[in-house]
Amino acid sequence: MELTRAPFMPENPPGKPATWFTEYHGPGTGLTMKVLRTLYSAKSAFQEITLVETEDFGRVLLLDGIIQTTERDEFVYHEMLAHVPMCAHPEPGNVLIVGGGDGGCVREALRHETVEKVTLVEIDEMVVDCCREFLPGIAGGLDDPRVEVRVEDGVKFIEGCEEAFDVILVDSTDPVAMASPLTQVSFFRKAKRALKPGGLYAAQSQGPVFEGHRMRRITRRIRRVFPGAATYLANVPTYPGGIWSFALAPKSRRTDVRAKPRALPPDEKTHYYSPEVHAAAFTHPPYVAEILG
Amino acid sequence: MELTRAPFMPENPPGKPATWFTEYHGPGTGLTMKVLRTLYSAKSAFQEITLVETEDFGRVLLLDGIIQTTERDEFVYHEMLAHVPMCAHPEPGNVLIVGGGDGGCVREALRHETVEKVTLVEIDEMVVDCCREFLPGIAGGLDDPRVEVRVEDGVKFIEGCEEAFDVILVDSTDPVAMASPLTQVSFFRKAKRALKPGGLYAAQSQGPVFEGHRMRRITRRIRRVFPGAATYLANVPTYPGGIWSFALAPKSRRTDVRAKPRALPPDEKTHYYSPEVHAAAFTHPPYVAEILG
Repeated sequence: MELTRAPFMPENPPGKPATWFTEYHGPGTGLTMKVLRTLYSAKSAFQEITLVETEDFGRVLLLDGIIQTTERDEFVYHEMLAHVPMCAHPEPGNVLIVGGGDGGCVREALRHETVEKVTLVEIDEMVVDCCREFLPGIAGGLDDPRVEVRVEDGVKFIEGCEEAFDVILVDSTDPVAMASPLTQVSFFRKAKRALKPGGLYAAQSQGPVFEGHRMRRITRRIRRVFPGAATYLANVPTYPGGIWSFALAPKSRRTDVRAKPRALPPDEKTHYYSPEVHAAAFTHPPYVAEILG
Repeated sequence: MELTRAPFMPENPPGKPATWFTEYHGPGTGLTMKVLRTLYSAKSAFQEITLVETEDFGRVLLLDGIIQTTERDEFVYHEMLAHVPMCAHPEPGNVLIVGGGDGGCVREALRHETVEKVTLVEIDEMVVDCCREFLPGIAGGLDDPRVEVRVEDGVKFIEGCEEAFDVILVDSTDPVAMASPLTQVSFFRKAKRALKPGGLYAAQSQGPVFEGHRMRRITRRIRRVFPGAATYLANVPTYPGGIWSFALAPKSRRTDVRAKPRALPPDEKTHYYSPEVHAAAFTHPPYVAEILG
């Protein structure tokens, strides 16, 4: 990752340029953030891991220079990836999370009283270690006794696992390089086999503004394997276009994933998710419906 | 407006830096766009007007360096500001638009068969002229025989007008300087008087991510005058945080602005608005509900 410098910022006194990081969403569009300091920077066997403290979004985790999560807006992505499937399931007990080494989805899944076990399968141990140290508010749930953290390849894990899950959440990086196998039909078939009857699969499925082609491709592959799959949307301010999509796919096509969701325990306060948001998130603007086809 | 240069872009060949424009949303956050050329740049009596051609968003109108509208995503803002109130009204005939010199709201309002007259009151004639020349796809409706373009101060117009309107849309810049009077209680009272019985007032009301304080203040003022007011949301990719809010305020508090909307004529294809999006847009994530109080 390059930390670019933008010395023309009005708030930077002359001769004292601040460090700015820019993530490019398209050839001519980027989100730029003022970086106060870099807390962690390392190259693992899989990717470059960078943890920076920013002016507006708190601490930000970058993998290969792409924003994965920020302290300020992580609640949107994690609540929506976890609670929509978890609340669509009548009694989620055994949960598998593939990727998501920051622990955000684990934290949210644990808020459901029915959960007995959460297995996190993350390929890159250095991501887990970095987040445990620098993002304790996100990674804190990893120490819960109900959680098992396994450092291994999610594809291999799901091929070999003898367990069956009520809910499988795939919290992966963009579907290039390392994460590409997690968006293939062969993986979706294995995930479907690893679900209990009545089980639900959910995954981030890219955004419609800059990644429409990826969103369409991934969604079509998921639907080939899970004919009952549906797409829902959320506003993630730091993701390209500010809007992100998720696929919710039931093992049985007869499961209505848009049925009235089960409620979270009343003392579990959420900031983005609510039963009303759950229902509204499945509504697509016509331009999004057109991408999905 | 400054067009800043970011010479560290990987896609810029060495020695040939492209021109990039950055709009700052907070002290440490910005949206940056690659500018291919500047088509128009002038200082009117009210503001700096800049029209640039960008790599990803087509032509972009900037007022005092703030993105107002882009060819690529203008449909979201204009469809949502116009069609939610227009479809919530049983028979909008006489429409007033304050601000909105680009003509986008006029274009959308004209798609309703019941509309007999649209009055656009824009303070800055140079904005209208610039958009007529460089954004014909947005401004084209201004030449419709049902449209009257008046170059004058919206506050003074509404004080002196003898007409009454079915729908008033306020499409203003951010509530600072020139646009500040359009967010005052005194203006809302005048607008309420200028509505026919059953009439509806709508306005952009800022975004929750970076302008939460403004959104809260404006919404509270609107509610003081229009007790039946409600807030709706839309994803505008080029606005701060990618999420924007609008107030829909009925003259009579007994009007249910969330009732089933009237349909647009079937041959009027929209890209963001739909009756389902209309209904879903009034759902607020808890963090937004908290801002609104």
